[in-house]
Amino acid sequence: MIRLALIGIGTGNPDHVTLAAVRALNAADLVLLPRKGEGKSDLVDLRRLLCRNLLSEPSRTRLVEFDLPQREGRDDYLGAVDDWHGAIAAVWGELMDHHLPAGGRVAMLVWGDPSLYDSGLRIAARLGQAGRNLEVEVVPGITSLQVLTAEHRIPLNRLAEPVLITTGRRLRERGWPADAACVAVMLDAGGAFEALPPEGLHIWWGAYLGMDKQCLIKGPLAQAGPRILESRAALRVRHGWIMDIYLLARTGPRPI
Amino acid sequence: MIRLALIGIGTGNPDHVTLAAVRALNAADLVLLPRKGEGKSDLVDLRRLLCRNLLSEPSRTRLVEFDLPQREGRDDYLGAVDDWHGAIAAVWGELMDHHLPAGGRVAMLVWGDPSLYDSGLRIAARLGQAGRNLEVEVVPGITSLQVLTAEHRIPLNRLAEPVLITTGRRLRERGWPADAACVAVMLDAGGAFEALPPEGLHIWWGAYLGMDKQCLIKGPLAQAGPRILESRAALRVRHGWIMDIYLLARTGPRPI
Repeated sequence: MIRLALIGIGTGNPDHVTLAAVRALNAADLVLLPRKGEGKSDLVDLRRLLCRNLLSEPSRTRLVEFDLPQREGRDDYLGAVDDWHGAIAAVWGELMDHHLPAGGRVAMLVWGDPSLYDSGLRIAARLGQAGRNLEVEVVPGITSLQVLTAEHRIPLNRLAEPVLITTGRRLRERGWPADAACVAVMLDAGGAFEALPPEGLHIWWGAYLGMDKQCLIKGPLAQAGPRILESRAALRVRHGWIMDIYLLARTGPRPI
Repeated sequence: MIRLALIGIGTGNPDHVTLAAVRALNAADLVLLPRKGEGKSDLVDLRRLLCRNLLSEPSRTRLVEFDLPQREGRDDYLGAVDDWHGAIAAVWGELMDHHLPAGGRVAMLVWGDPSLYDSGLRIAARLGQAGRNLEVEVVPGITSLQVLTAEHRIPLNRLAEPVLITTGRRLRERGWPADAACVAVMLDAGGAFEALPPEGLHIWWGAYLGMDKQCLIKGPLAQAGPRILESRAALRVRHGWIMDIYLLARTGPRPI
């Protein structure tokens, strides 16, 4: 049997790792580290750094890097994601067979938290459906949304009100969600807030949250929006990649 | 000057504390521990336990317990909350004046994460508005939502879809939110899901998440709902208090 631990590791600040994550990492026989291509080598570097800093007996844990299959950029988004998950599950399965033929403990370090816009649980479910004897454990991690609000020193929700967490794609396609007071936007390929009439909206934006190169911008969307687009383009060129998220709220009579 | 650290401590599992939280706690001169009345003494016990386990030089940190003012149960909910926050801010201010007359570092241990349905940031903002020289730092913590999804081994969102985080009060008053596929419900005084037609809904429920007495129930709402109400009532009697949350999702052709 394979015991797979999906370990949330936060967003790049090694201090955001939990004691449970440290424990789960140290219990693993095998840690699989995905390589996501040249541009995002910072991300595998960060995972390597965490392993180096947190493994108390490095000799008893095998670290194996692998090239993450690329998602096809075709129009049928959900179909492309489905095929992509299938390809990743096949790679995970091969690596488990190769390195742990008699079973054991595998750890995957998941950016943020395994519950929020991460594919780990869906890929693990495929391995189980394919008849593999797999037991999954999830170790929660600090998400970029929590780092965004912590660094801006703001609550995620207005007092007693709901908050919607959505994607850039969806915000661009459907506009401001009906009845929402606060909307957190993740997975935005860039500036989906441009699709909204900016009047009456406030934005709190952050890129590379938790990392040394963290960048924060906030303000009324009409003024802050163009500054964010400009900074985002410059930062992406400088670092070769960018990950950013933001919170939007209707400006009301009460503070957030 | 007072430096106030609002430290997210997760939901009761001491292993869910982050390294940053341990660091911030150890940097404090004063830790304020709210007592919430007899029924919830487990909660102050847990904070005491964390301090005992995590302070590396206990003699240099003063731990001060105080009685948290009670919120009035009047009809004007937002007004009652506003008065309550004012009363808490007054108590925090007095404790800071008394124990740190020359300034210093104060830590408050916040259940879950300071960004999600917590009053700490709003109360700190009042102290600042009242002219106090206060610098606030937020240390993110694992929320009960993350523990709920980790323990049920489910994602919070469906693939590429949004998720709404809302309150029991709001779900009861307004019903199922328009267009929502997934709704996470917090701060429910008990069974707000009863207000929904259960057909086509699935629920993942958890109480005392992260603690030894954790209890999980899941299933189609029509079957699981009554079981949850029954367990909730029994657990509340047994332990004297209960904190629970749940995720609801429309049953669709795709798994969550």
